[in-house]
Amino acid sequence: MIKRLAVLGVGLIGGSLARALRRRGYCETIVGYGRQVAELEKARRLGVIDMIANSVPEAVAGADMVVLATPLGAFRSLFEAMNGHLAPDAVVTDVGSAKGCVVDTARSVFGEMPAYVVPGHPIAGTEHSGVEASFAELFAGRRVILTPTKETAAAALGRVRAMWETADAIVDELTVEAHDQILAATSHLPHLLAYALVNTLVDLDETEAIFRFAAGGFRDFTRIASSDPIMWHDICFANRHALLSALDRYVEDLRQLRASIERGDGESLKNSFARAKRARDRFTFKGQAAE
Amino acid sequence: MIKRLAVLGVGLIGGSLARALRRRGYCETIVGYGRQVAELEKARRLGVIDMIANSVPEAVAGADMVVLATPLGAFRSLFEAMNGHLAPDAVVTDVGSAKGCVVDTARSVFGEMPAYVVPGHPIAGTEHSGVEASFAELFAGRRVILTPTKETAAAALGRVRAMWETADAIVDELTVEAHDQILAATSHLPHLLAYALVNTLVDLDETEAIFRFAAGGFRDFTRIASSDPIMWHDICFANRHALLSALDRYVEDLRQLRASIERGDGESLKNSFARAKRARDRFTFKGQAAE
Repeated sequence: MIKRLAVLGVGLIGGSLARALRRRGYCETIVGYGRQVAELEKARRLGVIDMIANSVPEAVAGADMVVLATPLGAFRSLFEAMNGHLAPDAVVTDVGSAKGCVVDTARSVFGEMPAYVVPGHPIAGTEHSGVEASFAELFAGRRVILTPTKETAAAALGRVRAMWETADAIVDELTVEAHDQILAATSHLPHLLAYALVNTLVDLDETEAIFRFAAGGFRDFTRIASSDPIMWHDICFANRHALLSALDRYVEDLRQLRASIERGDGESLKNSFARAKRARDRFTFKGQAAE
Repeated sequence: MIKRLAVLGVGLIGGSLARALRRRGYCETIVGYGRQVAELEKARRLGVIDMIANSVPEAVAGADMVVLATPLGAFRSLFEAMNGHLAPDAVVTDVGSAKGCVVDTARSVFGEMPAYVVPGHPIAGTEHSGVEASFAELFAGRRVILTPTKETAAAALGRVRAMWETADAIVDELTVEAHDQILAATSHLPHLLAYALVNTLVDLDETEAIFRFAAGGFRDFTRIASSDPIMWHDICFANRHALLSALDRYVEDLRQLRASIERGDGESLKNSFARAKRARDRFTFKGQAAE
């Protein structure tokens, strides 16, 4: 049970977590904080939060669970603003899509990695943003990755795990490094590639015809290019090292495919496509929606 | 009306066209030909075709409409095999995803571009293959691009248009060159990128974890990597020039994004993502399924 949950950033993820926990009666009070007052008012009207805090210290005062659910770029100022104002029993967690940067920022602000800070990342979402897009079932059956450090207290980890399990998520633990490499490959790189493809097409002469004749494959491929640019900007910088490394491998793979096509090496191209198809077909997504 | 329709290659597309026309009572007889006898038997059992032809000459004998619906790589041998066996009133069309190569092949086999050959391309499909995946509604509301050449007879063009309209498709005309450029950008390049991404991930150390934690964005992004490798091999070579040109622009755009991330140019990255999102959001797909 959570007595007082502070949600910093009441958007799709923060709002959905609040809704999921409220549905189970898991929180006595849910306090929301954010920079967009209109969004917070909306969250209160929708019953997602009980109260609006006017500052970070006010939001975290007396909260036994604090969840950072803003874009990653705001984490430093949030940590700075809560420093010295947290309740003695407070646990702090987050939903950021990169974890190394969160640990680095926490270390830098608090002077060390606090035992009560549990970095986390729900692998869930849609390409929509804002509290109006939030829903209580967003995390049901979805994975949440927690990346405790050597400093993390077992009790804090346990409370964050219990919170996510109450939201019907499947909780896994990974190291910070493994998380960032895996997410770079499966999420951050695909987003970068989708944004880039849409821009490539916009730059072509026949943009209108291009979009008119584009088919479902293109629609699916580029759906994630409708994701929030600020959030993804933050993620790209936050996980820059792993992302650029994945991108470099990818561009090298593209270069080899290009060479196969150019020199007419049909066998190599066929084998490459067949290998990808086998891997993709083996990989069955079990009821996972958008990330 | 079609008296005798010859479908060369009774898979997802050829089978769906036969089903759609049959449903409207548009064909007296539908003859199927293909290299996989078991597939043809299945097509006949399913009522998709009436008869199985044992050779191309047998398939096209007396047919007033001949549809090539095999992978592009088989077109040369099909044209060669039908040459001299077509009925005097026969119209020949195809469903290949690239058109310049079809015109080149037809010219080379028939000595000139025949007036009765109408290159075509339905922008429809799924990532599944085979006659069992075919269904009569596949083309409903979807676009079919016809790319007549200066040699094409108006009457032949009209008969192909009428056939596709009977299958409830929306028929457009483009030049061969425009078609190939547009499809390179919206379909062939995305397929290449998706195949490449899956292969990049398979090569990483943590493949199993990567697939376990992959989310919906990744699923959608890579769905087209489940497409038929032979067909896409053929398309990549058939439209090689336009595809490599689109790929080069894309890799250059990726290089610029990479540079923005590397030098910490947040504004440029944000603008680039925001521009892509605006374009993608403007682009509404109306009931289009997979390509």
